[in-house]
Amino acid sequence: MLDRVNSPADLKRLSREQLPTLSQELRDEITRVCSVGGLHLASSLGATDLIVALHYVLNSPRDRILFDVGHQAYAHKILTGRRDQMHTVKKEGGLSGFTKVSESEHDAITVGHASTSLANALGMAMARDALGEDYTVAAVIGDGSLTGGMALAALNTIGDVQRKMLIVLNDNEMSISENVGAMSKFMRGLQVQKWFQEGEGASKKAMQAVSKPLADLMSRAKSSTRHFFDPASVNPFAAMGVRYVGPVDGHNVGQLVWLMERLIDLDGPTILHVVTRKGKGLSYAEADPIYWHGPGKFDPATGDLSKTAGGKPTYSWSAAFGDAVTELAKLDPRTFVITPAMREGSGLVGFSKAHPKRYLDVGIAEDVAVTTAAGMALQGMRPIVAIYSSFLQRAYDQVLHDVAIENLNVTFAIDRAGIVGADGSTHNGVFDLSYLRSIPNVRVGLPKDASELRGMLKAAQESPGPFAIRYPRGNTELVPEGTWPDLKWGTWERVQAGTDVVILAGGKALEYALKAAADLPGVGVVNARFVKPLDLEMLREVAASARTLVTVEDNTVLGGFGSAVLEALSDMGLRVPVRVLGIPDEFQDHATVESVHARSGIDAQAIRTVLAELGVDVPLGV
Amino acid sequence: MLDRVNSPADLKRLSREQLPTLSQELRDEITRVCSVGGLHLASSLGATDLIVALHYVLNSPRDRILFDVGHQAYAHKILTGRRDQMHTVKKEGGLSGFTKVSESEHDAITVGHASTSLANALGMAMARDALGEDYTVAAVIGDGSLTGGMALAALNTIGDVQRKMLIVLNDNEMSISENVGAMSKFMRGLQVQKWFQEGEGASKKAMQAVSKPLADLMSRAKSSTRHFFDPASVNPFAAMGVRYVGPVDGHNVGQLVWLMERLIDLDGPTILHVVTRKGKGLSYAEADPIYWHGPGKFDPATGDLSKTAGGKPTYSWSAAFGDAVTELAKLDPRTFVITPAMREGSGLVGFSKAHPKRYLDVGIAEDVAVTTAAGMALQGMRPIVAIYSSFLQRAYDQVLHDVAIENLNVTFAIDRAGIVGADGSTHNGVFDLSYLRSIPNVRVGLPKDASELRGMLKAAQESPGPFAIRYPRGNTELVPEGTWPDLKWGTWERVQAGTDVVILAGGKALEYALKAAADLPGVGVVNARFVKPLDLEMLREVAASARTLVTVEDNTVLGGFGSAVLEALSDMGLRVPVRVLGIPDEFQDHATVESVHARSGIDAQAIRTVLAELGVDVPLGV
Repeated sequence: MLDRVNSPADLKRLSREQLPTLSQELRDEITRVCSVGGLHLASSLGATDLIVALHYVLNSPRDRILFDVGHQAYAHKILTGRRDQMHTVKKEGGLSGFTKVSESEHDAITVGHASTSLANALGMAMARDALGEDYTVAAVIGDGSLTGGMALAALNTIGDVQRKMLIVLNDNEMSISENVGAMSKFMRGLQVQKWFQEGEGASKKAMQAVSKPLADLMSRAKSSTRHFFDPASVNPFAAMGVRYVGPVDGHNVGQLVWLMERLIDLDGPTILHVVTRKGKGLSYAEADPIYWHGPGKFDPATGDLSKTAGGKPTYSWSAAFGDAVTELAKLDPRTFVITPAMREGSGLVGFSKAHPKRYLDVGIAEDVAVTTAAGMALQGMRPIVAIYSSFLQRAYDQVLHDVAIENLNVTFAIDRAGIVGADGSTHNGVFDLSYLRSIPNVRVGLPKDASELRGMLKAAQESPGPFAIRYPRGNTELVPEGTWPDLKWGTWERVQAGTDVVILAGGKALEYALKAAADLPGVGVVNARFVKPLDLEMLREVAASARTLVTVEDNTVLGGFGSAVLEALSDMGLRVPVRVLGIPDEFQDHATVESVHARSGIDAQAIRTVLAELGVDVPLGV
Repeated sequence: MLDRVNSPADLKRLSREQLPTLSQELRDEITRVCSVGGLHLASSLGATDLIVALHYVLNSPRDRILFDVGHQAYAHKILTGRRDQMHTVKKEGGLSGFTKVSESEHDAITVGHASTSLANALGMAMARDALGEDYTVAAVIGDGSLTGGMALAALNTIGDVQRKMLIVLNDNEMSISENVGAMSKFMRGLQVQKWFQEGEGASKKAMQAVSKPLADLMSRAKSSTRHFFDPASVNPFAAMGVRYVGPVDGHNVGQLVWLMERLIDLDGPTILHVVTRKGKGLSYAEADPIYWHGPGKFDPATGDLSKTAGGKPTYSWSAAFGDAVTELAKLDPRTFVITPAMREGSGLVGFSKAHPKRYLDVGIAEDVAVTTAAGMALQGMRPIVAIYSSFLQRAYDQVLHDVAIENLNVTFAIDRAGIVGADGSTHNGVFDLSYLRSIPNVRVGLPKDASELRGMLKAAQESPGPFAIRYPRGNTELVPEGTWPDLKWGTWERVQAGTDVVILAGGKALEYALKAAADLPGVGVVNARFVKPLDLEMLREVAASARTLVTVEDNTVLGGFGSAVLEALSDMGLRVPVRVLGIPDEFQDHATVESVHARSGIDAQAIRTVLAELGVDVPLGV
């Protein structure tokens, strides 16, 4: 059946009775596509039925369908003419792993971060009304994303201005990690109680319009021990002024279509609370949806994972961080680790088990993560906020206002810094050096390996003030337990002598620099592992002796490490020429990390090309 | 009586019956202090009774009392030994207008932005428990601040982890502007219904502990038409897992003490919902609390405002913006203005009346403001987000992720950019040039006057992509209606010829540069009104002819305009020396704008000193 459906128009030619079959074919296709590894399987399976229903009822692209985060929308991509490109998802030149406006007219928003869909939907509904147009705005948001403050605050205004829109709350009882937070418990309560509730005014109309399913729900509600139906007894959504309908089965496509057809005609905002299963229809994915959120390569029929044949075991930066803080917390009772819903991604599963009383997951609320750390630091703890670079962007003001002004002892362990590759422009962490170093009191370091990471963590825990330690996606070297090197914050390291051209680089860029300069004796290499403060003494030395400096960074060229060097040289009145290499001032689409680094001109080959331009005698090849 | 109270210990020596009198004396003192103008009167009057009760019941500084935003805490300052310094509030070297950790051991947090108190309180409570300590954490948060997403998201985790804390919801029915949003309506509903509600479990204990006032409330609740008392029928706070008590009269000090004494002994988090009046006790302030939020100079006895004798009428940048967009919206049906709760401050009262259908106040939710604009832009509008520089920090990721990646047509009208003076370090807008210009696609301009502001607004509305226009607190020149100069984005203007030293400066800094160079014929001055893109052509010309360049900016020296010039020169291989002047890399405490600019070395006198150092023949004085 799927072979006949290449657009929403094709979909509408099916009968309602055919929809469950189509859904199953979509799930099979998604499972097949995802079996190559690295894609978002479980959430896409869970959302397939509701996506089929939405496209059956609405007319995309005229009607706007917004997906929060956008990683659950594979069925949407297939239904909107992209089936034959699904094998390219997250590959260079291929489809994005999220929805992307520039990819398809059916993708209403470009997204990757959570909790943005409701404000976008509000804006669209208000634009529609201001311009006198008439279409439906529908947002699909998960229970995890809904606990993000931005979503809750948007709901507050949505309830206030009462524009017509449909919000599908896709409640699969978890975001990427186990879901946390009181709202989650409350939503569980909703399901147990099987109650539903309406606000005032519009409730009667809603009741009449959707009477059959609601009557069913009512009768179920009445059979539960606790129920009520009183317009004054509001649930949180109704309290905010948003009509609430649910919870309903998110895998009953027919019922979803029936409901949506009626709900989209109602004035004002409506939340349809649907309950889905992550991994729906795939027994092994339903059983362990956290693993199957983004699994590696697997056999779609059995769920057997591919063994990577031989090769040395890998040790990720995230694991290196997790191991380090698990040890650190044994040494220091003030260590406390906070994550905004990224326990697995940040390597904290072990920590959360070893030190459950000094571990906090605040849900998808980066701002809360940072300011909770500030509160802890004010009362004598040494909190570490484990966060991805692109997500720390969501707490920029909290770093500045709540942590930096009082120079509080908060350490930021920033994972996925620099280019992240397959997740693309929304997830690249290439702005942190720029936005962090311009905040007073914030010290910034970028370790070259796990040992330096540990040295920086230790230095940060032992010194006053906020410290940011950023490291990339990918692997580093395993270090033995108990490795805690002394590392003076702000000191660079001369790795390769040379006074013709000297390359200054830290972290991932240092690796490229060393590779580029390995066979070039005149070229010096400095491990510029601290961006703030700079090692001014070494910079002065190098500037005095070198003919030219080259800075390399896995960060935008604007305002980052290279700029810091330019500022310092200008400040010291030193006139050595500097070539600044970094990520160009444009958003980088998904591709492999290596490919983006190559096209950005910061990999070893690119550095050699620059060295040759600068007059260094560079043999061909690396 | 106030003369005998200089500390929380003194306060505890009073009998409960004396507290109302003390409160009134505190209010009189606050009114007297605020009559000099420019201070936060109405909210401080409204919060006095609850502050007296908190300090009577708790033991600060051991117990922690957090004030959200911190501008309502004048009574707290007076009660904690700062009465004799109250005349210095917001003055250089004097007390801060907010709470500030470095100012007093009684100030639990350093603050100025809204909605941060709950996450801070959560962190404190968790630190307390992790370190095995025992003290009370109490946060005071207004109904406006509570609608900030960060506060709602923090409440979600507070309800989850169930640490002991008291949250006093100071419900005065408005933040700075009229309060907006559905939560606000809901809280009004609470008051009308006079209902209160408890969650499960702890509710019985709470009921027993606070039975008398709750029984009173119960009986009032029963006499209202809509009421219920069923543990399953939860209000939004109880739904989040937070015990809810209220609403109670926030001016009945005796009852507040009685309640708080009991509530602080309860396990887990409790919200005490108190209803207060902004401007309490002062008839003229109660009658118009928006004006009296931060009034000018007045006669405390009568409320008569001081007339400023003579002088030319002033025209603020905010008014210039408000007038411009009010006209613009007549010319362009796609113009839409969004504010995060800053209608008055951003000069939008006129606009909101002239174009009510193209005006939206989203409450204190900067992230929602920006992403709502993104949604509008996706559907054909030309939204303008009117926002203060330091508050745009709270939407950094939304600018990047929701607006910039797709190069959407959103204009940011950034008020209070640069040093703001009396509000101090939390409110200085000295980071925007750094954090905005490093985001791809974001264009940044800083007009020198109202005419240039209009030119930039027009250019922004007529061109694709996001534009940021930043202007300072203070006044500019009135321009006639219909002034819409053509201004090509990215072009600088040579204002004073000269090839010895050339000063590059935009906005407020240009004013200083012109003043500094007025009598120096060899010194050139360029109106560098665009920081992104730079006018590379003019920069190249100037760099080729000048002996030295001086950049001046009302922004941090790290990563801002000066750095942009250094980057461009390095990129073009030009070797002219550059002196970068700007706000030093440290937080700037409150003082007059002029004073901070002087000590930062960017005012006219400071520029002349630098010119003299650079060998320019500078006569003494300016």
